[in-house]
Amino acid sequence: MPSSSHYIFYLTPATVCLPVHWVLHELAPHGVTFEPRLVDFSSKAQRDPSYLALNPLGRVPVLVMDNQPISECAAILLLLSERHPAANLAPTPTSPIDPTVRDWFYADTDGDPEGAKWVKSMAEKRMSDGFEVLNNQLEGNEYLVGNSATAADYLAVCLARYSRVFTNPGLEWENVRALVNRMIQKPTWEEVNRLEGITGTWPQA
Amino acid sequence: MPSSSHYIFYLTPATVCLPVHWVLHELAPHGVTFEPRLVDFSSKAQRDPSYLALNPLGRVPVLVMDNQPISECAAILLLLSERHPAANLAPTPTSPIDPTVRDWFYADTDGDPEGAKWVKSMAEKRMSDGFEVLNNQLEGNEYLVGNSATAADYLAVCLARYSRVFTNPGLEWENVRALVNRMIQKPTWEEVNRLEGITGTWPQA
Ligand SMILES: N[C@@H](CCC(=O)N[C@@H](CS)C(=O)NCC(=O)O)C(=O)O
Ligand SMILES: N[C@@H](CCC(=O)N[C@@H](CS)C(=O)NCC(=O)O)C(=O)O
Repeated sequence: MPSSSHYIFYLTPATVCLPVHWVLHELAPHGVTFEPRLVDFSSKAQRDPSYLALNPLGRVPVLVMDNQPISECAAILLLLSERHPAANLAPTPTSPIDPTVRDWFYADTDGDPEGAKWVKSMAEKRMSDGFEVLNNQLEGNEYLVGNSATAADYLAVCLARYSRVFTNPGLEWENVRALVNRMIQKPTWEEVNRLEGITGTWPQA
Repeated sequence: MPSSSHYIFYLTPATVCLPVHWVLHELAPHGVTFEPRLVDFSSKAQRDPSYLALNPLGRVPVLVMDNQPISECAAILLLLSERHPAANLAPTPTSPIDPTVRDWFYADTDGDPEGAKWVKSMAEKRMSDGFEVLNNQLEGNEYLVGNSATAADYLAVCLARYSRVFTNPGLEWENVRALVNRMIQKPTWEEVNRLEGITGTWPQA
């Protein structure tokens, strides 16, 4: 099964699509091209039957690879890494902190609003455990795996960004903050932020 | 980067390792071999520094591919599918119901015991949404994707099994039950259950 380097990318700006978007831009020198397709939450496009055919759960991101729609941000990053080994992005260990981000931001709609504070508190505990692990792994290292940025680093920066509203944001962990400051020097970081209309948070971690 | 067909598989019997274990057995005719290594929870082996080096979160399963340890059951299945295309296992869309299983079973240890019932109730709601999606996708189809079993089907059967203790177990969805009954005819199902010492639940869904 030959694997193509052209992808269709369903995204909504300023969501968990960001790490995929960023990595797709980083893959450009390796011959990767993609066609972005906006999923407009304000018109409930994620609930449209045509979109549900791609991801029956009605969530972004979805990346179409060889006519096969793949969902879950971490899964997409893993497959991109495996398919483009020359970019040295991976495969890197994934972690379950990605769904944890959803737990926090959707606690009162995915669950019972009455129990939202408990769901959020478990999510914050898991995120803190996750940042602790990342911080330890970064002790004495510039990147999470090996000597250059892998998909894990792109994801870590985005997770740190999402956590900015938590009691303990990712930037409180010293090595995580150093990683963020290193990663956001990449020209593609400013580029995807501009394309997604994200302003005001970083750079200046 | 050449990808090897020999893996080291860290597992604990009767956990979320089961779908990976099952698929590894299904891949045998495609030249896949693996060395199982038991992670003994009773001696807290998942917290041993040597194991934390493989998965800093101290969870099973871990599959070592080309010297790279990969965690998260769904991620492992996705990579196995992509690496052994002749087995027609995928890549299939993943879903976040895997971490949801953990939410249920670990609600009172990962979070505050006081809030456990809310975490469990969100998990059950998400699992029900997941089974609804699977059930719809199976309407008129024997398998979730295409005309033969893909990794998604193996995972679905295991998720249905974990849900046996929920208010609404997966078997309550008619097409899910039909899929389970079809899948557990595979000789490898009985084989992995025997190897993991699982008795008494199925076959006889
Ligand atoms: N664990 C999933 C989470 C996906 C997710 O929750 N996406 C949100 C945006 S951040 C979404 O699609 N929300 C729309 C909705 O739920 O209706 C992933 O990492 O891809
Ligand atoms: N979302 C993860 C869940 C992994 C997980 O929670 N594994 C459990 C066994 S079912 C474990 O390792 N428990 C030991 C512990 O947390 O100490 C996956 O699908 O791999």
